[in-house]
Order: sequence, then C-alpha cells, then structure tokens
Amino acid sequence: MEIMLFSNGKVAGNTELLEYGYEWIESAMERTKAKKLLFIPYAMIRSSYDERASQLREAFARFGCDVTSIDTVSDPVRAIEEADGFLVSGGNTWVLNKMLHDLGLVRPLRKAILMHNKLYIGWSAGTNIAAPTIRTTNDMPIVTAAILPSLNLVPFQINPHYIEATIEGHMGETRDERIEEFLVVNPHEVVAGIPEGTMLQVSGRTLRYFSANGKPMKLFRAAQEPCYYRQDESIQFLMEHGC
Amino acid sequence: MEIMLFSNGKVAGNTELLEYGYEWIESAMERTKAKKLLFIPYAMIRSSYDERASQLREAFARFGCDVTSIDTVSDPVRAIEEADGFLVSGGNTWVLNKMLHDLGLVRPLRKAILMHNKLYIGWSAGTNIAAPTIRTTNDMPIVTAAILPSLNLVPFQINPHYIEATIEGHMGETRDERIEEFLVVNPHEVVAGIPEGTMLQVSGRTLRYFSANGKPMKLFRAAQEPCYYRQDESIQFLMEHGC
Repeated sequence: MEIMLFSNGKVAGNTELLEYGYEWIESAMERTKAKKLLFIPYAMIRSSYDERASQLREAFARFGCDVTSIDTVSDPVRAIEEADGFLVSGGNTWVLNKMLHDLGLVRPLRKAILMHNKLYIGWSAGTNIAAPTIRTTNDMPIVTAAILPSLNLVPFQINPHYIEATIEGHMGETRDERIEEFLVVNPHEVVAGIPEGTMLQVSGRTLRYFSANGKPMKLFRAAQEPCYYRQDESIQFLMEHGC
Repeated sequence: MEIMLFSNGKVAGNTELLEYGYEWIESAMERTKAKKLLFIPYAMIRSSYDERASQLREAFARFGCDVTSIDTVSDPVRAIEEADGFLVSGGNTWVLNKMLHDLGLVRPLRKAILMHNKLYIGWSAGTNIAAPTIRTTNDMPIVTAAILPSLNLVPFQINPHYIEATIEGHMGETRDERIEEFLVVNPHEVVAGIPEGTMLQVSGRTLRYFSANGKPMKLFRAAQEPCYYRQDESIQFLMEHGC
C-alpha cells in the first residue's frame, strides 16, 4: 500500500499545489516507480478540470510522471487499471464521493490501491474519501447523496484542514465541537485531525505523520482529552483500529 | 403561517438563549396567543435535553408560555397536535432531520405549521430544517442519513450562522465559496445567508428580515454578485421563489 493523504492542496502564501509535500512525494516516487498518474478531478466545482490537470502535469513532470485526467478518457475503469497511481483533488467531498459511486469506480480504485499497491495521493476531499466514510468532512452537502461510505483505505476517520483557531465572537460550533459531536454519536471511532501543511502516509503497513510546519496531528476519541502527535511519533496503532 | 427562523441561539457575550430576539418573539406571542409550546431538542448532542428545556421554560414564562419537551411525552404526534407552537433547538442538523423523519414527525409538523398556523420558532439547526432541504447546513454529517429534504416551510435555502470573516492563513473554503459551490450544482436555487443575531420571519404570507445588530442578510444566486438586504428592505420576492 502506498497512500499519501494531504490535509490540503495549497498552504497560505501562494505556493504551488502540493509544493509543501514535494520532498515526501519524491521519496514515494522513488519507491513506487510510478510514471502514469491518473488525475481524479470530480471534487472540483469552481474551477476547470483541464486547468488543474495542466498544473499537475507541470508539477509532476519533475518526478518524471505523466498525468491524464480521468474525465478525458473513454473508459475510466480501464484507465484505473492501466495507471500506476492516482491524484485525487480537493473540492467538494460530497460531489466527489457521489461521482465515484455513480460511475462505479469505488471497487476498481480499491482493487488498484489495496491489491495492486498503486500509489494514491489525495488532498482535502481526496483525503476525506480515503477514510471509511465521509462523515468527518467539513464540506457542505451541496448534492443529495445517500452514500456516505467512501474508499475505506485506512480504518479511521480523518478531518483535513483541521484547525483550532476560531473567529472571535462567532458562535457556530468550533471544529473541536463538531468532532466531539461525531464521537458522541459514534463512540467507537477515532478522528485524526490533520492541520494544513501536513500529511498521513501509509507505506506497506506503516502509518506515518508528516508535518511541513511542525504542527501536530490531533487525535480525538470519545470521552477522552484529544492527544497530539508530532512527526516521527508512532501512530501505528491507528492501523489496528479495525473497522 | 407564523414562523421565526433565527440564525443562532446565543450571540457573543453570554446572553440568554434567544435573548436578542425577545422583542420579536413577544410581538409574535401577542399575535398568535400561543401558550403551550412543544420543545424539539433532537439536534442537541453535547448537552442535556432537560437542562435546555428548563432554560426555555424559564425564558418563555415571561410570555406566559409553558414549555414541554417532546422527548418526555408518550405520544409525540398527539403532542404536536395539541401544542400551540414549537421551539426547535440548534445542534446538529443531520441528527435533527434524521430524527424527525425516523419518528414520522415531518408530516404532523408541516400540517400543524402550514395548515393550522401554529407558531414555529427555530434557531441554527432548527432554521436549517425550515428550508426545503438541509443542503446548506454548516454541520458535519455525523450520522449516515440518506434524507436531505426537510420541513420545507419556506421555498428557499438558508445558511444560518452566516459569516464573511475568515481565519487568516486558513485555506479551507470560505463560507461564500461553499455557497457558491452549492449554486454551481443547483443553479436554480437561492441561498439566504443570515448572520448571527438576525432572524427571518414569515407572518401570514409576509416575509421580513430582522437584525439585532444591523448586520444585513446576504442573498446568493448562481452566477451573480450576492446582494445585501437590511431590516425593513423588502425580501418578499423570496416567497415566490417557487420550489
């Protein structure tokens, strides 16, 4: 298994998409020798699939990779079978998950990633769908979508773009309160809050946390104080969480 | 029809629940003569139904009203039929909407409110479910709930706790971006963003906007610049939106 789950695409300050993770990606590319990457843009709502595909093509050329967008191929399942890896964009998690189910791509993707160990690189919405379900997304449910289960590549829930800061005077639920509510309703699950500029990686069966800015991961469990984990602290126990 | 849809329960600064709207509520109480209020607490996750019911009982005593919580009655449908009005708490919109559908309360509530003109007072999640669907909620989908349609008391979508401010350096979607995405996917709908400390009221067929702090309502339409509406500006056209 080779999975990289980024909290978000761009960090503040006008960097390139995934630039904060180029070193991590380079090392994964050396391990996997992935060359043909399939881009899955379905989460994108406000900007163009083509434009994003071009940006990614340019960015991944540095690793010797070619990028094709799945919306431009005639047979998406075959494209999944023939690709060496996948790039799954952020945007709206509901739309992304619905599209994957509607187009029958969940099973082919799981097979490629879990059985054939093809590289999966997701960010934001693309990270949400790597969890068992999309129940810890921050996104608005802009489409009526009955299906909340997602790719289930890792056995725990993730909250990308995790943030502790709040807007002064705003009385809407904080992120921590939302996650706390999730755990009241789902007390046997755990939620990994990953701040912007960070990534969860599964290589083989080894789970590791990477942080480009020193920000820790925050792990939430029902009726317990959340715990912080820094890069290089072991979080392997999360892989045995067993869903 | 007598409907009051508050953006939120408490405004910043430790006031009582709905205190910023006491005057508006008093005037509705004089019109409707409502005395027996039924409290619907199902959105609440992190705090006690009983405690909130007590707070409301105390608060609404000033209007000569009695408050019973629906979770304490043996026959919820009969309680809806016998009540003069409803208080619907904030919390998690997904859990609230699912409970109303699971318990078969959507039709009895619509009948009471739309046919028998019983008073409906909702805040936050209680406001979300007055729209045709819950697709413009800010809440995390902490339960797997296939049903997004809600009470459909007004023919447009509402975004409660609406806020323009963002957290510096945070790259997650802004509220405006989330609503823009909703309208890309649903271009024939409109979304009324109501800031904290404000309320939408329908009395008879007349829709009005009230703001305790001068903040305007922000109306979003597909592919158009959003428009602001202040208290006393006409927004009646929203009632003819026709869903």
